[in-house]
Amino acid sequence: MRLMACEAAGRIFVGVEKDGGVVPTSYVTMKELVQDGEEGLAKVRQEAAAGEVVTAGYRVLAPIANPGKVLCGGINYLNHKEENPKAVFPTRPSVFSKLPTAIIGPGEHIVLPYADCQADYEVELAFVIGKRAKGVKKEEALDYIFGYTALNDVSGRELQFALQHEIIGKGIDTFCPLGPVIVTRDEIADPNKLQIRSYVNGELRQNANTELMLFHVPTLIEAITAYITLEPGDIISTGTPAGVGTFRNPPVYLAPGDYVAVEIEGIGKLENRVVAGW
Amino acid sequence: MRLMACEAAGRIFVGVEKDGGVVPTSYVTMKELVQDGEEGLAKVRQEAAAGEVVTAGYRVLAPIANPGKVLCGGINYLNHKEENPKAVFPTRPSVFSKLPTAIIGPGEHIVLPYADCQADYEVELAFVIGKRAKGVKKEEALDYIFGYTALNDVSGRELQFALQHEIIGKGIDTFCPLGPVIVTRDEIADPNKLQIRSYVNGELRQNANTELMLFHVPTLIEAITAYITLEPGDIISTGTPAGVGTFRNPPVYLAPGDYVAVEIEGIGKLENRVVAGW
Repeated sequence: MRLMACEAAGRIFVGVEKDGGVVPTSYVTMKELVQDGEEGLAKVRQEAAAGEVVTAGYRVLAPIANPGKVLCGGINYLNHKEENPKAVFPTRPSVFSKLPTAIIGPGEHIVLPYADCQADYEVELAFVIGKRAKGVKKEEALDYIFGYTALNDVSGRELQFALQHEIIGKGIDTFCPLGPVIVTRDEIADPNKLQIRSYVNGELRQNANTELMLFHVPTLIEAITAYITLEPGDIISTGTPAGVGTFRNPPVYLAPGDYVAVEIEGIGKLENRVVAGW
Repeated sequence: MRLMACEAAGRIFVGVEKDGGVVPTSYVTMKELVQDGEEGLAKVRQEAAAGEVVTAGYRVLAPIANPGKVLCGGINYLNHKEENPKAVFPTRPSVFSKLPTAIIGPGEHIVLPYADCQADYEVELAFVIGKRAKGVKKEEALDYIFGYTALNDVSGRELQFALQHEIIGKGIDTFCPLGPVIVTRDEIADPNKLQIRSYVNGELRQNANTELMLFHVPTLIEAITAYITLEPGDIISTGTPAGVGTFRNPPVYLAPGDYVAVEIEGIGKLENRVVAGW
């Protein structure tokens, strides 16, 4: 199923994408659905089969609001490592954190906080944790995934590189576009074979396949849950390939008026407009 | 007021410390109380004045469960910068993130995930955000604080230093002791003049005053909220002074059986036992 968080006439609900529209379900928030596990999915599947398709009058929101964590793989594509003169080849998976308050949905604005913030795009395959996970081995890791979505790891490079820690630059409000849908696990045959792309004003900027990840989805889950409990609704993003703006020569950054899109095979395209917040 | 999260006979509640015991209030979780703001505090104040003191049969929990964020000031005491050969003098406040799933309360065990994880203590003054904060100027910053507590920024130095990002080493489950109480803002005359100490098995290891912070509480709030929305219940920790184990010569780390305590003037002492998780 392709699940969407929607809003219509001030009411929020989880919907299932169908025939170019959406079938509303009885779930209000995606987090409640995730917490209900297989039972919840079975219920929603029935509701989607029986329900009527709505084709207008609704807005698509970020698929998950207020996740407990948003962790992102750092330097997880070799060609992104190679374009970054300061990157060290990672021998073990490493993650950093974005912030739940930075999440926006498709069509919402990326608000630049100041003119020289050097905002940059990063297309990433993200997944949503479906059940409490600790000490998970990679062989069983995919069982802990509720579904997949696209994440644009928008990064304020000025703050990211100037401060000792990257979280402020990575966690700026509106700097975490997410969506447009969550595709349930059963519909993604192999998360390690998906084409991923980003565009600025329609121009292709990144174009790679998740098979090029240094540490694949199951390895990331094993590495994190060796130490850290993942909870239903937590979001893990898998890193970005080469082609970001900051390592171009000369560097190019997102500017007010730009449209930036990230696209993942089997999931869809997540587009946001960039606006000035000053 | 000195607020505690408590559990008795399987029921959780917010209590007010009084006469060596606790007066239970009608609030179930601290987050609900924080969200109710001044009105909630007035209600709890009344209940504490009228209620009966319970002196046994309850357990003190971490004062906040599942905060939206736990952000910590990095290198925020000059003498901690000086003991760390790799630290760069920060010209702007920087923060990193711990993880909500790492939080434990007073008396709970710090569980070392493996023998050579090089677990270390860090006493820190932490504060709890009382209301939604964005673009807050330092002159008005203290108004956004609900109260103060102690945080032991337990750090797995092996992972912290070996990986590109510190969040796994800082975010290990049980590595964020918090408490024992939240002291409401009105009872801390000046958060920038509090003595803070840590002890291992009763031996004093860190001993400093918050007046030695490089970036004080109001400056941290201004610096973060310039870019990031803080929400009620979010926890901000203010960094640690010199005296941590990893920069001693030779380094000393926490071992199974150790008792580690952090103590903050006007707040209290937060003690936890260290155990082996392997």
